Amino acid sequence: MSGFQVDEVVAALQGARREWRESQQRNQTGGERELPSRQVVEEVVEALTGVLFPMRLGPTDLRQESEDFYVAHALDNALHQLHTQATLELRHARRHTPAELAGLGADAQQRVREFAAALPGIRKMLDTDVMAAFHGDPAARSVDEVLLCYPGVLAMIHHRLAHQLYRLDLTLLARIVAERAHAQTGIDIHPGAQIGAGFFIDHGTGVVIGETAILGERVRLYQNVTLGAKRFPTDSDGHLKKGLPRHPVLEDDVVIYAGATILGRVTIGKGATVGGNVWVTQDVPPGCSVTQALARELARDPTAVPGVAPAK
Amino acid sequence: MSGFQVDEVVAALQGARREWRESQQRNQTGGERELPSRQVVEEVVEALTGVLFPMRLGPTDLRQESEDFYVAHALDNALHQLHTQATLELRHARRHTPAELAGLGADAQQRVREFAAALPGIRKMLDTDVMAAFHGDPAARSVDEVLLCYPGVLAMIHHRLAHQLYRLDLTLLARIVAERAHAQTGIDIHPGAQIGAGFFIDHGTGVVIGETAILGERVRLYQNVTLGAKRFPTDSDGHLKKGLPRHPVLEDDVVIYAGATILGRVTIGKGATVGGNVWVTQDVPPGCSVTQALARELARDPTAVPGVAPAK
Amino acid sequence: MSGFQVDEVVAALQGARREWRESQQRNQTGGERELPSRQVVEEVVEALTGVLFPMRLGPTDLRQESEDFYVAHALDNALHQLHTQATLELRHARRHTPAELAGLGADAQQRVREFAAALPGIRKMLDTDVMAAFHGDPAARSVDEVLLCYPGVLAMIHHRLAHQLYRLDLTLLARIVAERAHAQTGIDIHPGAQIGAGFFIDHGTGVVIGETAILGERVRLYQNVTLGAKRFPTDSDGHLKKGLPRHPVLEDDVVIYAGATILGRVTIGKGATVGGNVWVTQDVPPGCSVTQALARELARDPTAVPGVAPAK
Amino acid sequence: MSGFQVDEVVAALQGARREWRESQQRNQTGGERELPSRQVVEEVVEALTGVLFPMRLGPTDLRQESEDFYVAHALDNALHQLHTQATLELRHARRHTPAELAGLGADAQQRVREFAAALPGIRKMLDTDVMAAFHGDPAARSVDEVLLCYPGVLAMIHHRLAHQLYRLDLTLLARIVAERAHAQTGIDIHPGAQIGAGFFIDHGTGVVIGETAILGERVRLYQNVTLGAKRFPTDSDGHLKKGLPRHPVLEDDVVIYAGATILGRVTIGKGATVGGNVWVTQDVPPGCSVTQALARELARDPTAVPGVAPAK
Amino acid sequence: MSGFQVDEVVAALQGARREWRESQQRNQTGGERELPSRQVVEEVVEALTGVLFPMRLGPTDLRQESEDFYVAHALDNALHQLHTQATLELRHARRHTPAELAGLGADAQQRVREFAAALPGIRKMLDTDVMAAFHGDPAARSVDEVLLCYPGVLAMIHHRLAHQLYRLDLTLLARIVAERAHAQTGIDIHPGAQIGAGFFIDHGTGVVIGETAILGERVRLYQNVTLGAKRFPTDSDGHLKKGLPRHPVLEDDVVIYAGATILGRVTIGKGATVGGNVWVTQDVPPGCSVTQALARELARDPTAVPGVAPAK
Amino acid sequence: MSGFQVDEVVAALQGARREWRESQQRNQTGGERELPSRQVVEEVVEALTGVLFPMRLGPTDLRQESEDFYVAHALDNALHQLHTQATLELRHARRHTPAELAGLGADAQQRVREFAAALPGIRKMLDTDVMAAFHGDPAARSVDEVLLCYPGVLAMIHHRLAHQLYRLDLTLLARIVAERAHAQTGIDIHPGAQIGAGFFIDHGTGVVIGETAILGERVRLYQNVTLGAKRFPTDSDGHLKKGLPRHPVLEDDVVIYAGATILGRVTIGKGATVGGNVWVTQDVPPGCSVTQALARELARDPTAVPGVAPAK
Repeated sequence: MSGFQVDEVVAALQGARREWRESQQRNQTGGERELPSRQVVEEVVEALTGVLFPMRLGPTDLRQESEDFYVAHALDNALHQLHTQATLELRHARRHTPAELAGLGADAQQRVREFAAALPGIRKMLDTDVMAAFHGDPAARSVDEVLLCYPGVLAMIHHRLAHQLYRLDLTLLARIVAERAHAQTGIDIHPGAQIGAGFFIDHGTGVVIGETAILGERVRLYQNVTLGAKRFPTDSDGHLKKGLPRHPVLEDDVVIYAGATILGRVTIGKGATVGGNVWVTQDVPPGCSVTQALARELARDPTAVPGVAPAK
Repeated sequence: MSGFQVDEVVAALQGARREWRESQQRNQTGGERELPSRQVVEEVVEALTGVLFPMRLGPTDLRQESEDFYVAHALDNALHQLHTQATLELRHARRHTPAELAGLGADAQQRVREFAAALPGIRKMLDTDVMAAFHGDPAARSVDEVLLCYPGVLAMIHHRLAHQLYRLDLTLLARIVAERAHAQTGIDIHPGAQIGAGFFIDHGTGVVIGETAILGERVRLYQNVTLGAKRFPTDSDGHLKKGLPRHPVLEDDVVIYAGATILGRVTIGKGATVGGNVWVTQDVPPGCSVTQALARELARDPTAVPGVAPAK
Repeated sequence: MSGFQVDEVVAALQGARREWRESQQRNQTGGERELPSRQVVEEVVEALTGVLFPMRLGPTDLRQESEDFYVAHALDNALHQLHTQATLELRHARRHTPAELAGLGADAQQRVREFAAALPGIRKMLDTDVMAAFHGDPAARSVDEVLLCYPGVLAMIHHRLAHQLYRLDLTLLARIVAERAHAQTGIDIHPGAQIGAGFFIDHGTGVVIGETAILGERVRLYQNVTLGAKRFPTDSDGHLKKGLPRHPVLEDDVVIYAGATILGRVTIGKGATVGGNVWVTQDVPPGCSVTQALARELARDPTAVPGVAPAK
Repeated sequence: MSGFQVDEVVAALQGARREWRESQQRNQTGGERELPSRQVVEEVVEALTGVLFPMRLGPTDLRQESEDFYVAHALDNALHQLHTQATLELRHARRHTPAELAGLGADAQQRVREFAAALPGIRKMLDTDVMAAFHGDPAARSVDEVLLCYPGVLAMIHHRLAHQLYRLDLTLLARIVAERAHAQTGIDIHPGAQIGAGFFIDHGTGVVIGETAILGERVRLYQNVTLGAKRFPTDSDGHLKKGLPRHPVLEDDVVIYAGATILGRVTIGKGATVGGNVWVTQDVPPGCSVTQALARELARDPTAVPGVAPAK
Repeated sequence: MSGFQVDEVVAALQGARREWRESQQRNQTGGERELPSRQVVEEVVEALTGVLFPMRLGPTDLRQESEDFYVAHALDNALHQLHTQATLELRHARRHTPAELAGLGADAQQRVREFAAALPGIRKMLDTDVMAAFHGDPAARSVDEVLLCYPGVLAMIHHRLAHQLYRLDLTLLARIVAERAHAQTGIDIHPGAQIGAGFFIDHGTGVVIGETAILGERVRLYQNVTLGAKRFPTDSDGHLKKGLPRHPVLEDDVVIYAGATILGRVTIGKGATVGGNVWVTQDVPPGCSVTQALARELARDPTAVPGVAPAK
Repeated sequence: MSGFQVDEVVAALQGARREWRESQQRNQTGGERELPSRQVVEEVVEALTGVLFPMRLGPTDLRQESEDFYVAHALDNALHQLHTQATLELRHARRHTPAELAGLGADAQQRVREFAAALPGIRKMLDTDVMAAFHGDPAARSVDEVLLCYPGVLAMIHHRLAHQLYRLDLTLLARIVAERAHAQTGIDIHPGAQIGAGFFIDHGTGVVIGETAILGERVRLYQNVTLGAKRFPTDSDGHLKKGLPRHPVLEDDVVIYAGATILGRVTIGKGATVGGNVWVTQDVPPGCSVTQALARELARDPTAVPGVAPAK
């Protein structure tokens, strides 16, 4: 017998699982894995990163004349793996009739096909992000350094893939992708956030961007910026209402400095700047530059600055 | 000969090690590894994660009817590895008499046995954390998504294991476990912190919870919250006093929004709320909602709000 | 035919790469990898970590009497790999004449040799960092726990290696090393930053230290501290000027508490303390302790405190 | 473009595959793998070897008190993998009606269950083989050396597993298992051969034992012995008749020395011995010792030795 | 210091290497690997096996519709690796002038291109070998079993690749490939041997086929057959003459049974059969069936059988 | 519950193990592994192969100037692993008193030290084997091809290591090493066999060399040669007598052609040749060439050839 009472602990753990499954009205009769695998999804993302940027983020020994062979094989592989994971997500999402179950594979295939078709566009968007980082950071020496090293770019590779999954209603896969970026970069972008071309996050640790945020083109953020919700509306039963617009809108060319917090469905107008550590819960007019002092004044008197209005 | 003067560098590095060992009065006469291995401890945690949640965080191809076989084998394995690491920690902790050295293995075994016995309870606590996250985040779609994706849950899996090691006075192992979570999630919870059921951290990057903090049930934190010490008391010799209560107490149902900082042995009363970016160094009465404005007022006049008292 | 239109997507991705290369005036005619490999550089750092601290961060089964065999082989290996990567960086840095190209290998070798020669000094510096962490954290129980667990120490192992690469003008390799630490610890130190002995970062997530920052000896920082630039001067053409001193100088024995932000080429005098969440854009005199209240006053009247002057 | 005309070669290889499939009337319309995987089957055998002899051929760090945990998990895993492979074999074996296809999984499960039930008996048979080797080789020093090192024992572990698969009409899996032993030991035993307890092959390279051979208990063979078929009977259409008894029968306690060849459905009687390099195509009476000289005489006059008769 | 006098042994081993290099007039001044790598060549063969038979010997999870993506990528990769190894062999083969050295890469590329162009033909030849095995073995149940399991087929996959390398004068690479098959199957075919379509070796262990052997179509061999040289002619200086025809010629439809030995440049005529264990050093006329008895008679009187003549 | 009755099979397997242990009077009370690990010993051999021939059989990317770093580290590592395995063998060999047990580690260390000291001599012997192969095979093109490819050389690398272990009375480790070569090459040399310099085995499959065989210098063998025992003498109790000289002695410059069998303690005199397939059980005088015809004559009349005498 083991010196650690393994048998007893195993039985008690079994009991704990049974309790949980009962509390969740889950199947207790066995069967295969019901959930997508975090590990497989992460392998898919790793592969797609190489597919999007083969000579820079792909295999070390790849040669330019072999790019297409590598891209085709790695892409094909990744899409098949994604198809399996997507089918798992669809099956897990809710109870299905047998007829529906039979159609899940085809449904998943259609979504993966659309996902694949979006990849070239994603690559082009990411190229604009790389250029934005290169032009926006005085320490950047080359576009390749930016692609290879900048956590903000890594986060955007993940986000643009995750957002596409989100749009195809594969929200669990999307979330797994997003959390991989979060773990590696400290940048937490919800897959639902809509972000225009030429986006740049510098340093990035601590950035949070919420599900219904909308960012225009050429937006720039620094570390520790929050684009969050002010409060969570509940319905008449007291349950959180899901899916309501509750995060900020940033128009083109907005810059938000480190540590700033913007809460609620407010609009930061085109070209506006929000200073470091500033706390914003009102609209900011285009071109306006919000400092800590101005923000404090607005907190006392929201009408002190023309065109600045409280969040709806 | 190598073009890099390897021999010379090796000799100089040897000198640097000798200096260090002399300065630390360490053994210079050889022998085996004296310290636990970060890598092995991380493998143990990885295995225990699968043991606690076999179908969701265990091996991809596990089937429900095989859970117990997997759990028993993986658990047995992990406990034996942990036993070795615990013995290393005990031996490293201080000089032992030969008689004490002989007993370290049995001592470590006893601790690992207690650790194992605590696992089913830890699983149940983690189930409450998962439910709290599901109910607390409007973006959460299922309890499984929460377990699979949320960094706050990953951090708590680590913390509840680390805290158990801490209670068994295996503080170095506990710390290794905690730092693994910190690296992956940006959430830094000291293994000593006591945290009740139903705990939820949203987003999480930048959260710091100190060694002597005490959190009740159903507490909720957002990113970048610090529950820290105000100052470090020293004894008459000017050395830091270790182990004194110096971090906040949060009673049941407290909510702390992003960026808030609470310092010192203050008590945040049951059901109280601390707003984003607020700086708190006094007690907050139950049910009270502390905003930035209120916090500023209190900073000027601690008696301005009845029941709010400066930290002891 | 695959069900995912792989051929079409591959062609479209090829088109996207072609566009990018045209926009960057890049070679389209094939050839080998042109960029250093993030993965190889990370392996080099991993190996050097073991070389610097063989019994504590090297292979688990190493014995003290075999240290030099391990160190010599691992170092030799790592330096050869580094040599390859350094040659790639030099070749990538700009267009070379054929004669220059022929000399790149020797140039890289000279730099790697200097890098190797600096390793013993780096080890000694890191020993002072370890001691600083041990003395600065009331929760630390041993110097070995500090080396094994503290993210601040991990960040400094990376930074002291990266800074040496930076000084040898291998800035891309330096950046890769720095971003590895950033990903693991949430601590973002630009390789250019000059940091004296005995440096300690506690918790660390969210710390940002800019390229031209200069830190004296025995400096201590907490999580979420920014030592940043105030603005980015542009030349007459509107391009960012690179390399100008634009980040703070911290003299010996300075302490900066969590969440503080110090911007611009200001000097924090010897022994000064900056409180949590404080925002500083002026010089702080030696020994001075800056609180939030004082900072707010200074923001209104920079001359309110003698010796405190606005940043140049 | 690659310098190797990869596109052209790929097209030509595709053509070759198309031709082959046409010649075999195979499906050209795509789909998943149709055949069992040699690699997976070999992993199953590797796992079962550990299951049968956990402390000697199982994982290096296994402890006796943990045997059952390991055995249960590894066995469960291996049986599930085997189930998948068995289903692939059944599906591949011939065209099925849809109804039959639906039942293949259950059919495979029944066979794997019988296979599992046979394992304890296989272990006991193998124990007798180990004892036979220990007693039969003057160079053997312990039963453990025999189990660990002797290729004849390795071959029998494979054969006794393969024979069980063969009996369950999983002949392709059986063959894969047998060929693994053949590759490692040079001993080629057809899975169909029936072999009694206490069997020992010394040295073994070059041994061939045919499909319908029957060996009694305590038989001993040396290297390069062939128990083969004399000729292959064809039916009236000229096709080889399959499954007819065409290999030798060796009764209990027979010894066959190195290089001997025994062909056809002959019987070597209980306790008989066949000398090195001898060529036998007749029955050999019990207790008889056949030398090269005697064999040559028999070749000239089959009646020269009473009781020796030509093969049927 | 290590307890094993490692330093002394290292020095003595260095001395032994120095002696060897002096005796071979080898370079002592350092530098990179000069020889092809057995491991890399084996990876190339493994990859090409998958390229030739993607759905049966390629990756387990390959789907038919993705074959070409896999084939293109794996082939391209393998050819690049082969190119590196071929360049190493050419450089190692003899001293080159600097001009020759510069051209080795292009020379190797040309050979690898020819090798690639031969692959579709090799696949077709191997298909005939598979059919021959299926028709020649009464135990074979399907062509797929034959491809998956038969060592004779594995040996021929290697041989047909190795022979192509041999024809391109990459004899060292060819030999590495051949020895891989030898290690796995016990079948030792020199890469120089010319073997026609529809070749089948049953069981195979111990088969040896020499460098200048020529085999027609539909030849069949059993285990332990030697097609060897009778003696090695030397030139006037007593050195072995290389490359002379010295091994047998087997015309179409020849069958050689187990253990037979055929030595020297003799011809076994179309459709002839050589019995088990027979020793042949003369020509055998077409259609003739040579038994042990006949062979012994011929050994005494080579003219006993019309048309049978001693080897030249 | 698993569909495979895993619990029942596990219990039955446990019963089988219990029976075996009872029959062997083995410990049933648990504990660690008692036997050396085949896998670890094979890793040691793999490492030592690289240590002996670093640039040709060591790591692919080794450079000549780094040889000693690699050799020292790999050797040190391998010797420590070997020490652990040697201790396991000594402990397993027989029951020890507690005092003896305590001394096993030091005993093993002494043996490993002697083993290490023998390595340079082994390298020199192997160099003579390589030269012998190069001069003995008309197909060999370079000494490096011989080292890289020839199974006979691979077998001798293993044998010369195994024989050294055998001389240090680590016979189980020696056997594991020998069987590794047997598995890879089909050449079965007992570790006890004494073999002089310049030994060459061509092709090799099926060669068997017994424990007490003694081979002089420059001996050459071909495939399928047996140097075996004629019979196994038993003592008065009917047990096999171990360790008696029972295998042939081959003096310098002897050549044995393929398929020859030499049995018993006979002596093949200096420079003698034994032809293919010849069966020898008598002494052969120096310089004599034994053909099949001569062998048959001797079998009838041992005195037919002067100087040829029956085996003792």
